[in-house]
Amino acid sequence: MTTKQMEALAQEMRTLLIDKLSAHGGHCGPNLGMVEATIALHYVFDSPTDKLVFDVSHQSYVHKMLTGRAQAFVSSQHYDDVSGYTEPSESPHDHFTIGHTSTAVSLACGLAKGRDLQGQDGNVIAVIGDGSLSGGEALEGLDWAAELNSNFIIVVNDNQMSIAENHGGLYQNLAELRQSNGTCSNNLFRAMALDYVYQPEGNNIAALIDTFKKVKDIDHPVVVHINTLKGKGYQLAEDDKERWHWIAPFDKITGKLTHECSSENYNDLTATHLLELMKHDNTICAITAGTPGIWGWTPENRRQAGSQFVDVGIAEEHAIALASGIAKAGGKPVFGVCSSFLQRAYDQMSQDLCINNNPATILVLWGSLTSMTDVTHLCHFDIPLLSGIPNLVYLAPTNRDEYLAMLNWSITYTQHPVAIRVPVGFTKPANRPVDTDYSALNHYEMVHKGSKVAVLALGNFFELGEKVCTQLVAHGIDATLINPRFISGIDTEMLNNLSRNHSVVVTLEDGAIEGGFGEKIARHLGASSIKTLCYGAKKQFADRYKPADFLAENRLVDTMIADDVMHCLQNE
Amino acid sequence: MTTKQMEALAQEMRTLLIDKLSAHGGHCGPNLGMVEATIALHYVFDSPTDKLVFDVSHQSYVHKMLTGRAQAFVSSQHYDDVSGYTEPSESPHDHFTIGHTSTAVSLACGLAKGRDLQGQDGNVIAVIGDGSLSGGEALEGLDWAAELNSNFIIVVNDNQMSIAENHGGLYQNLAELRQSNGTCSNNLFRAMALDYVYQPEGNNIAALIDTFKKVKDIDHPVVVHINTLKGKGYQLAEDDKERWHWIAPFDKITGKLTHECSSENYNDLTATHLLELMKHDNTICAITAGTPGIWGWTPENRRQAGSQFVDVGIAEEHAIALASGIAKAGGKPVFGVCSSFLQRAYDQMSQDLCINNNPATILVLWGSLTSMTDVTHLCHFDIPLLSGIPNLVYLAPTNRDEYLAMLNWSITYTQHPVAIRVPVGFTKPANRPVDTDYSALNHYEMVHKGSKVAVLALGNFFELGEKVCTQLVAHGIDATLINPRFISGIDTEMLNNLSRNHSVVVTLEDGAIEGGFGEKIARHLGASSIKTLCYGAKKQFADRYKPADFLAENRLVDTMIADDVMHCLQNE
Repeated sequence: MTTKQMEALAQEMRTLLIDKLSAHGGHCGPNLGMVEATIALHYVFDSPTDKLVFDVSHQSYVHKMLTGRAQAFVSSQHYDDVSGYTEPSESPHDHFTIGHTSTAVSLACGLAKGRDLQGQDGNVIAVIGDGSLSGGEALEGLDWAAELNSNFIIVVNDNQMSIAENHGGLYQNLAELRQSNGTCSNNLFRAMALDYVYQPEGNNIAALIDTFKKVKDIDHPVVVHINTLKGKGYQLAEDDKERWHWIAPFDKITGKLTHECSSENYNDLTATHLLELMKHDNTICAITAGTPGIWGWTPENRRQAGSQFVDVGIAEEHAIALASGIAKAGGKPVFGVCSSFLQRAYDQMSQDLCINNNPATILVLWGSLTSMTDVTHLCHFDIPLLSGIPNLVYLAPTNRDEYLAMLNWSITYTQHPVAIRVPVGFTKPANRPVDTDYSALNHYEMVHKGSKVAVLALGNFFELGEKVCTQLVAHGIDATLINPRFISGIDTEMLNNLSRNHSVVVTLEDGAIEGGFGEKIARHLGASSIKTLCYGAKKQFADRYKPADFLAENRLVDTMIADDVMHCLQNE
Repeated sequence: MTTKQMEALAQEMRTLLIDKLSAHGGHCGPNLGMVEATIALHYVFDSPTDKLVFDVSHQSYVHKMLTGRAQAFVSSQHYDDVSGYTEPSESPHDHFTIGHTSTAVSLACGLAKGRDLQGQDGNVIAVIGDGSLSGGEALEGLDWAAELNSNFIIVVNDNQMSIAENHGGLYQNLAELRQSNGTCSNNLFRAMALDYVYQPEGNNIAALIDTFKKVKDIDHPVVVHINTLKGKGYQLAEDDKERWHWIAPFDKITGKLTHECSSENYNDLTATHLLELMKHDNTICAITAGTPGIWGWTPENRRQAGSQFVDVGIAEEHAIALASGIAKAGGKPVFGVCSSFLQRAYDQMSQDLCINNNPATILVLWGSLTSMTDVTHLCHFDIPLLSGIPNLVYLAPTNRDEYLAMLNWSITYTQHPVAIRVPVGFTKPANRPVDTDYSALNHYEMVHKGSKVAVLALGNFFELGEKVCTQLVAHGIDATLINPRFISGIDTEMLNNLSRNHSVVVTLEDGAIEGGFGEKIARHLGASSIKTLCYGAKKQFADRYKPADFLAENRLVDTMIADDVMHCLQNE
């Protein structure tokens, strides 16, 4: 192909991308910015002998088009034939399933080391965005890469954005590198002992081909820093890069979302509520790790919060330690983080925060079986991850009022760190009074006192618990309904009292069952005569599932649960 | 105090340190190297108004002496009055309980941000060693620190060592900085947008005072890079820095350990065994994250392994991703990591390794309630952490032969990643035949078929299970004894068969009980008529406990367990 033909191809691909994205939603800005670089990479390198590893891999749509999967971008019936990330089961050109950030350099180092151990040849190329560089794993990988002493190419796709704007000192160095056309003497990558090449025209196919040819078959690790335009070729996406990082289906002309929704959700509620609290307390500090938008921190809300809002960039480990330090110093930090991404900071939760017992508030966002359904973004595991950490109070509110009451309480509470599993979806008001003080830890709420069967319905699944009770009424059973509230503890008194007139306890949790809430209850009641039925998702990495089907597969349906209970009672 | 007096003080402290270390054991090299710098910090800064945060805090002995805790280094009766790490409950000069690496910059950033939110004054100083810089959290912290725009001082204590030698590209930059007296234009810290000062004489009190005075009350973040000598003033420690990083009680003249032990342990066995395998398979690659010594990788063993041994520095996240990549490329990686430090790589275990289902081997070292007893180094949590991750096979061998059989199998197994909880202590041969193939997953070993009571005795606690059975014989019970082998799965067939003639199932695990192995069993049997008694450590951050006392507090004693079983049977 000539350069001209490739440029025409790029235009065609861009049109297809915008068509699919407008109908289907997905990562917009990252893919539009990488069209030319991806074409040039495939032109110069011989995939899959040469191995391309894309960080986050949310920018791999063009790579998919070029490796036998164009149909999934051409024909709307085939849109869902491919995932939104690299996926080895789709193609030998994809080496890893990747969705979390900052992993590509290290994974690609592994491919290179594996190649070297076996005395094989071929280029290994990691492609990583500037926003991902702030993550600890990416920095560990950059630091170690120099030890390879063999072919290794790191393409740094610098579009001057994370999901929102970048934060961190290294971005000043990237700016200096761009301004000096890569010549400034101070250079983060060279300071990691890596060779370095700069290409200012990251959306110029000919220039990129020229640069990639220079590093092909290189015998040592090198960084190729390319300057690209996020959202390139679609004016709306170029103009508002944060909004167009990931977008739901939209109108191509106006950019308006196809399904706008005015109902209040828990994310927006959180930022609005915290902003109001900040007006009266300048020690409250909201913290995000590169994802302000997922909990309502729009650019305008951030501006209003001023220095009381901190974006650490993609750096959850730092965020937890920062929160611990702020709390130790007498401030009131509130770190909001997606359940799936909090997985990056288990040790910091345990060591930096909980051993030190500093009273920070952690808001766990989107923790649910139904919030994100890509295998790399599952929000199933936060309950097992957090509930075994000593000193941590982990709360599961069941409605809007209870959530705000818990949030207000946690901000002023000084005895322990508190995590709150923020409900998912649209807000619902309480249908019963809510407590304002949760200092008496591990006291469950007895919502309805019945007999024979007790349903412990945690957080998001409280409503499912209500429905199970309704189903049981039809079987002549007036079941007890309990709102546990505390994920991280057992109300031993209430549970022990149940034994008097209950024979079955049902636990419901909106997450993975292994290591979760229900198992603690099953253990506690293990030596009693009460039988336990625990509901949650069985151990699996589910991918791109329909939430309703997934819930049914796991028997997380009121009628199925009621059937199981009746079956259990009949076997008595 | 005059400089002369401080120098005399330094000498006196060094003598006290060597006296205590020789009798008590502890971190030797790190403390000897930091005597002068710690004196100078306390001379220049006004602790605790000015706040010192020590990374790992294993080098804080001199700080403790200078802040009211000298008695714990002077008088052998008081040696155990203080912990080996900073500890806020001991002194207002200690701001955090710290024991894991790479956290100080981020924690100190929090103190600085908390100070700024409240409009307060004072210096915040993080002290971090060069070895800790390779950790993701440290690099995240360095990157973000520039955003503070207020007083913040990072002292980089560069002794040119991690626990073993350093690995990673950044160490070339540190060397260049030392060689150029801090003047070379390429500078990792400046590339993170931090100000920078170099002091070559890191063991010269007057020079250090001079440097610290220059940065005191600075209005922006600055790195003070000091060049120190690890083990300074004790020739044996200066000469063999790796051996003297942490040392058990020793003879001051010869350096010989007071209690040498020639019995074979599982750590040395592992390196010896892997070296033997490597001779016949050049695709096997052992990986460590800065801790080669804890699993037998002496300098000589490393030399023999050559490029088949990789030290990534303190960088567990990178290590897991690297292992995943090597396995994907057809190599056979074996990453050995201390249970406590594996906590830093949960997300990489889940995303980089297990979603990708690449067949790496992870050796979890020291996983036990009895291996490390400092609160920051507990090895209690690996079972809850790992056993809920889909695709991972987590094995618990019960003796030497079973361990080696599992290790050999895992290296050749290609279906899933495998983690092995390496037994602790001295090796014990098998007292029964062991399987060589574990491909039929989740098949428990029925060691003895009895009735009424079944004991599931996992890994290190298999011997405890045997003892419990012996105790039960005295009560007239011929209990069933099971070696579960698979931590990560349930042998549903065997468990369901138990219900025919068993009424109590006992689970024993050498770790935290919450989210662990026993709870899975309790859940599985929750709807059956079998009662379950789960044994492990209750949820707590225990600190500096005596293992025997700790086990007794948790009823992890054969006689207590047998009593509980009999009590449970009587309540039937």
